Amino acid sequence: MENKPARKPHVVIVGAGFGGLEAAKLLIDEPVRMTVIDRTNHHLFQPLLYQIATAALSPADIAAPIRGILGRCKNTEVILAEVKSVNVEARTVSIGEREIAYDYLILATGSRHSYFGHDEWEKLAPGLKSLEDAIEIRRRLLLAFEYAEKITDDAAKKAAMTFVIIGGGPTGVEMAGAIAEIARYTLDKDFKHIDPSSARVVLVEGDQRVLSAFPEDLSLKAMEQLKELGVEVHTGIHAKNLTEEGLQVGDEFIPCRVKIWAAGNTASFVGKTTGAPVDKVGRVLVNEDLTIPGHPEVQVIGDLANFSYRDGKPLPGVSPVAMQQGRHAARNICAMMDERKPQRFRYWDKGSMATIGRNRAVADLHIVHFSGLLAWMAWLFVHIIFLVGFRSRIAVLMQWAWAYFTFNKGARLITRNFQAESRPLT
Amino acid sequence: MENKPARKPHVVIVGAGFGGLEAAKLLIDEPVRMTVIDRTNHHLFQPLLYQIATAALSPADIAAPIRGILGRCKNTEVILAEVKSVNVEARTVSIGEREIAYDYLILATGSRHSYFGHDEWEKLAPGLKSLEDAIEIRRRLLLAFEYAEKITDDAAKKAAMTFVIIGGGPTGVEMAGAIAEIARYTLDKDFKHIDPSSARVVLVEGDQRVLSAFPEDLSLKAMEQLKELGVEVHTGIHAKNLTEEGLQVGDEFIPCRVKIWAAGNTASFVGKTTGAPVDKVGRVLVNEDLTIPGHPEVQVIGDLANFSYRDGKPLPGVSPVAMQQGRHAARNICAMMDERKPQRFRYWDKGSMATIGRNRAVADLHIVHFSGLLAWMAWLFVHIIFLVGFRSRIAVLMQWAWAYFTFNKGARLITRNFQAESRPLT
Repeated sequence: MENKPARKPHVVIVGAGFGGLEAAKLLIDEPVRMTVIDRTNHHLFQPLLYQIATAALSPADIAAPIRGILGRCKNTEVILAEVKSVNVEARTVSIGEREIAYDYLILATGSRHSYFGHDEWEKLAPGLKSLEDAIEIRRRLLLAFEYAEKITDDAAKKAAMTFVIIGGGPTGVEMAGAIAEIARYTLDKDFKHIDPSSARVVLVEGDQRVLSAFPEDLSLKAMEQLKELGVEVHTGIHAKNLTEEGLQVGDEFIPCRVKIWAAGNTASFVGKTTGAPVDKVGRVLVNEDLTIPGHPEVQVIGDLANFSYRDGKPLPGVSPVAMQQGRHAARNICAMMDERKPQRFRYWDKGSMATIGRNRAVADLHIVHFSGLLAWMAWLFVHIIFLVGFRSRIAVLMQWAWAYFTFNKGARLITRNFQAESRPLT
Repeated sequence: MENKPARKPHVVIVGAGFGGLEAAKLLIDEPVRMTVIDRTNHHLFQPLLYQIATAALSPADIAAPIRGILGRCKNTEVILAEVKSVNVEARTVSIGEREIAYDYLILATGSRHSYFGHDEWEKLAPGLKSLEDAIEIRRRLLLAFEYAEKITDDAAKKAAMTFVIIGGGPTGVEMAGAIAEIARYTLDKDFKHIDPSSARVVLVEGDQRVLSAFPEDLSLKAMEQLKELGVEVHTGIHAKNLTEEGLQVGDEFIPCRVKIWAAGNTASFVGKTTGAPVDKVGRVLVNEDLTIPGHPEVQVIGDLANFSYRDGKPLPGVSPVAMQQGRHAARNICAMMDERKPQRFRYWDKGSMATIGRNRAVADLHIVHFSGLLAWMAWLFVHIIFLVGFRSRIAVLMQWAWAYFTFNKGARLITRNFQAESRPLT
């Protein structure tokens, strides 16, 4: 009589961002069945999303179909669906039409932007998390110039050419720099009735300095570089009274057509449905080994997790954290299958970088701080290396090279019907 | 006392497709002021639009911002607006908010698809004219496979994997071939519960043969090549009773989720507002010199014009006609400025080509007919040469090479919210 082969455990990974994808890649060759569920059909290289929003790259350059990466793996099934909830007792996740049972679960559903209770601001000031967000922001940016070119009223022209970015973290800084560049170098000679290089770009940060997660000297360098690009930086001020007409920044009401939100995140609602304790932005308070209390078979990683670091502060919501946690969660599952205990997660912080524009960036490698051209080249190198898939990497490199030498941006497309948008606002 | 310089005549070009853009390019160096009005911000290389719809190329690869092409010319103004009507007596065009006066007008607003009085079919079976159309079709195609993978009902699975293309002209043939290819070679191993290569692709043509504008031997060759790709071709049959569930083709009701319309065109409404006589699809019946009766200062070109050819049949709505007419219209304006008469337009018909898939195409060069690999290489060569702008050409070439050697398609993105689309249909 033959031994009946043991049933392979079923690993469900929810979310194919940096964390989920890394976990999946490690588990491809393990004796498990795996199901990866995502509500989009693509893995997105989010650090470059602002380049879609500012017309430098095309969506396909930074997004790779999840099936293209994992679909051909024998042990892996990919499902395009949104997970509605997790039932940790029954060990199932619900995708609405049906429940999917798991033996091990990795939750990596990430975060969305948060408007601090002002949900009505979302339409007025879109944030930047998905491809759709980026295409929408690109459309608003480009239409603002088209609108300014067409109209005759000077005040309305000025409002159309004023861009306010709310939030001075890496995304806000990158957006402000990129908008200033596109106005000054790409569109500067394209119009007859406006001078795009006179566009006003305003960055508003509630904290005392931009890039507040960086060391103070680099915050100052970033501020200097933004000012060189003509960006007006306001720190220590919270934007108020957002309306279609503009917003209040300190004592000044700034009339502006395009506002961009880069000021806060809230974790995906899926975390709460596990019943595990969450912090005030909805992140799951995970154990030292990334599991949740009482359920070692459930691990939460990336932006959805609140992992207490050295000083009790949670780890930041950046891709290296998500990727390291993804790999760790996969290794924990292997350990548990061997009836070993999940291990404590340790973050290897290699430093951080933010780019401000052409030849302008800051890089914090702990032992040394860079800014300017050297930091920019380091940023470029790291981002190309990490871009998923051969094709993207070459295509992106070519477009960057092209943009660098010509100051041209290749993806200046306005898609969707612009008619509804020729009206004064949004 | 100096001579006061004569006021430069104002040329207005409506539509920056192949015809309008060619006219504009010729007039850049002439002593005119020029205004180019288009309702999108980009010139679109329409012959490759089906490659967006089938995920082989990205929108930015085949679209170039009109301002990027013309915006920097000293004598040219570009306006993003939709022209509502032409007043030939007052010599103005209306863009809604204001009237723009012209001395010479070139109307090149093209055509949209026509549903022969069944406008309710538009939502069920989108056509392929704009980038938005192409992105929508791409979304429906890719979602159909995702949906089939998720559901368990066999009949619904089969309907989701049935694709019907209505209309066997070049667009219909290209779409059918490309869908068969993506199913058989690109997605074939990406799913676990369906076999994409078993997808049913149906092409329905009312005429007795596909590509009816081509010589009969090439129609037969095209039909053979479609069949090699597994496309089911029905000729001499009109599709009937389009519903969400499917459509009637002859005696068979074909249940299908995705239907694509490639069966007929109707000219832009702007033509009619000139008051000139139009044919039954709304094309302006132009004089031999492309002007309209009684108004030599108004010329109509491209898909919007009905230009009687040798046998009284109108010239086809293809890019070479539009481009030659665009150049001719520009030369006519130069002639009229010199107080010479506009000249008769003569079409130089270099032949035509249609592609069916990898290594498969037909080419009619009059003296010789090609099909298969040779025709495909000719098609590839011609399309790369004509693509506007250095960047696009290289990017497209790279993606084609990549797709050719790997059978991979780089732009398999579903954008916009798919949730609304997980329901049984559309």
